[in-house]
Amino acid sequence: MLVAVLPGDGIGPEVTAEAVRVLKAICGDTLIFEEAPVGGAAYKVAGHPLPPETLDVAKRADAILFGAVGDPDCDRLERALRPEQAILGLRKELGLFANLRPAKLFPELVDASALRPEVARAIDLVIVRELTGDVYFGTPRGIRITEAGLREGYDTMRYDEAEVARIAKVGFETARARRGKLCSIDKANVLETSQLWRDVVIETAAAYPDVELSHMYVDNAAMQLVRNPGQFDVIVTGNLFGDILSDQASMCVGSIGMLPSASLDSAGKGLYEPIHGSAPDIAGQGKANPLATILSAAMMLRYSLRRPAEADRIEAAVAKALAAGARSPDLGGAMTTRGMGEAVLTEL
Amino acid sequence: MLVAVLPGDGIGPEVTAEAVRVLKAICGDTLIFEEAPVGGAAYKVAGHPLPPETLDVAKRADAILFGAVGDPDCDRLERALRPEQAILGLRKELGLFANLRPAKLFPELVDASALRPEVARAIDLVIVRELTGDVYFGTPRGIRITEAGLREGYDTMRYDEAEVARIAKVGFETARARRGKLCSIDKANVLETSQLWRDVVIETAAAYPDVELSHMYVDNAAMQLVRNPGQFDVIVTGNLFGDILSDQASMCVGSIGMLPSASLDSAGKGLYEPIHGSAPDIAGQGKANPLATILSAAMMLRYSLRRPAEADRIEAAVAKALAAGARSPDLGGAMTTRGMGEAVLTEL
Ligand SMILES: CC(C)[C@H](C(=O)O)[C@@H](O)C(=O)O
Ligand SMILES: CC(C)[C@H](C(=O)O)[C@@H](O)C(=O)O
Repeated sequence: MLVAVLPGDGIGPEVTAEAVRVLKAICGDTLIFEEAPVGGAAYKVAGHPLPPETLDVAKRADAILFGAVGDPDCDRLERALRPEQAILGLRKELGLFANLRPAKLFPELVDASALRPEVARAIDLVIVRELTGDVYFGTPRGIRITEAGLREGYDTMRYDEAEVARIAKVGFETARARRGKLCSIDKANVLETSQLWRDVVIETAAAYPDVELSHMYVDNAAMQLVRNPGQFDVIVTGNLFGDILSDQASMCVGSIGMLPSASLDSAGKGLYEPIHGSAPDIAGQGKANPLATILSAAMMLRYSLRRPAEADRIEAAVAKALAAGARSPDLGGAMTTRGMGEAVLTEL
Repeated sequence: MLVAVLPGDGIGPEVTAEAVRVLKAICGDTLIFEEAPVGGAAYKVAGHPLPPETLDVAKRADAILFGAVGDPDCDRLERALRPEQAILGLRKELGLFANLRPAKLFPELVDASALRPEVARAIDLVIVRELTGDVYFGTPRGIRITEAGLREGYDTMRYDEAEVARIAKVGFETARARRGKLCSIDKANVLETSQLWRDVVIETAAAYPDVELSHMYVDNAAMQLVRNPGQFDVIVTGNLFGDILSDQASMCVGSIGMLPSASLDSAGKGLYEPIHGSAPDIAGQGKANPLATILSAAMMLRYSLRRPAEADRIEAAVAKALAAGARSPDLGGAMTTRGMGEAVLTEL
């Protein structure tokens, strides 16, 4: 099986290197790795954040391991050339419409959460975020001059029923495989897009009588994720609300350095990335926590490479390494990126 | 001075009644109150959530005291007749573009926050939310059938430079009167509307060299509000992001039953409302906490009625009532709505 490795910017290369070491240790020669530049790193060598060669490797691969993109050097480039366009482009080009972000506290890390221990401990949820639609990609969009001579910025929020039904199904299936509760989040009291979203989620529910469906407005959801995040099992939501709520949920469980994500197409091919960014301030210093990327590699084994046993082994090794005291700076320790990788390898 | 009282639905009438008692106690005959129905309550008597008579009182008044709207009986009405349209209509018709939402922990209530005490205690921020633009009001919007025969929901996100500059100024002025720090929140790495927003905020900053301006993406802001909310002084953001982040921030300080808000036009006229909703499940039972509405009345005295000394007196009385042990059910006590109002009156 071919795994595309796209390390990207900042701490991306450091953390993906550890994940690749773990994958090699567990899968030996059965995986072939092909590396390609992406983001600011790709812009610097090829003039584009997502060069055709990189897109080609990603398309050929069975799964993609992605580090992070984002580079302050590129902040003044026109939007189409900025590092973020690489991840948006990959999602769109590869049809990676379903973003799964589990958020669960490792018991050892309860002190890393800003929430009270009893609130943080109860968190065990998955956010299913739609990734290829919404105001992220809707057209028309741009900056124009109005009749009054004023600059005006505009974007189009939109979803059609097929897009909503597709992601709703992922939400229901995910809930069915867990505790059977799905909460759909929208702003149907204000937005037409949300009204259609809610209608279609309700229609989709007919095929899942075993799943308990609820609806929540996004403002209330942002409150409930602080007040009582333990109430959620699976959350399904659109691209923009999912962006906000999944980052919020990840911070509720403590370090953002711990959380993996999967972005899947309809055939199970996926891109796997830590939810943290490129953290240019600590890049190249061996300070980054590679566990989120290692856990992303575990998700890759489970969802795209169909090796659930190996996925379980990696997750167990991460838990054991933490229990044995492995702590990078974000977790209050002093272990290096490489040291954290070693700690996981030792437990494998 | 004329104060329009719009109690609305659910617990709205109970909590506004206590705020009116406090206003009467402190201002005597200098205020005239005129009450009018709004929301589901208005739909039931007049067939519309914002009847012309109610809008007329609101327009004539110097300030508006608003309870809450939202009524499950109205959930199946067409969107234009639902209770929420009343508050959206009032904001738009009266040009109430600047929503100020302070969030600060009352030290007595540190246990009501889901955050660790040391994190919660550090919160002392104001969110300045734009209230009459963005995807809330942009057109075109609707549900249509695509060429492929699919239902599609769509909305338009938009801001022009005048709208952004106007709210940015409120943000800078608010920061100048506090600790001098303004954080503008957008999603400029994805949205054109946000790109214009950021450009205009930066242009506006030229007139406020004494204010320290920073920018943050909305997903990161949702994380930071959990991780370290004490870092914020004043936040300025658009209508949609402000809706989400202000509710999140309010939950960080504990009970949503404590937080007031002001929605101002360019001349200082304002609508004052608690940030909580109509809570139909506890309506009419005397269980609602009126302090958010009483504190909203204090904001009214400060911003629209130009009586800062009286505003201070109300805020001090609320703090004293809490210190003396006044606790409604949301704060872990058993005091009634009326009892809470009495407790504040006693301290005045
Ligand atoms: C980098 C950015 C475009 C991206 C997004 O908004 O989707 C990121 O925040 C994420 O959540 O993966
Ligand atoms: C009721 C609803 C339309 C409203 C909004 O979204 O603005 C509410 O959530 C608020 O924040 O005042």
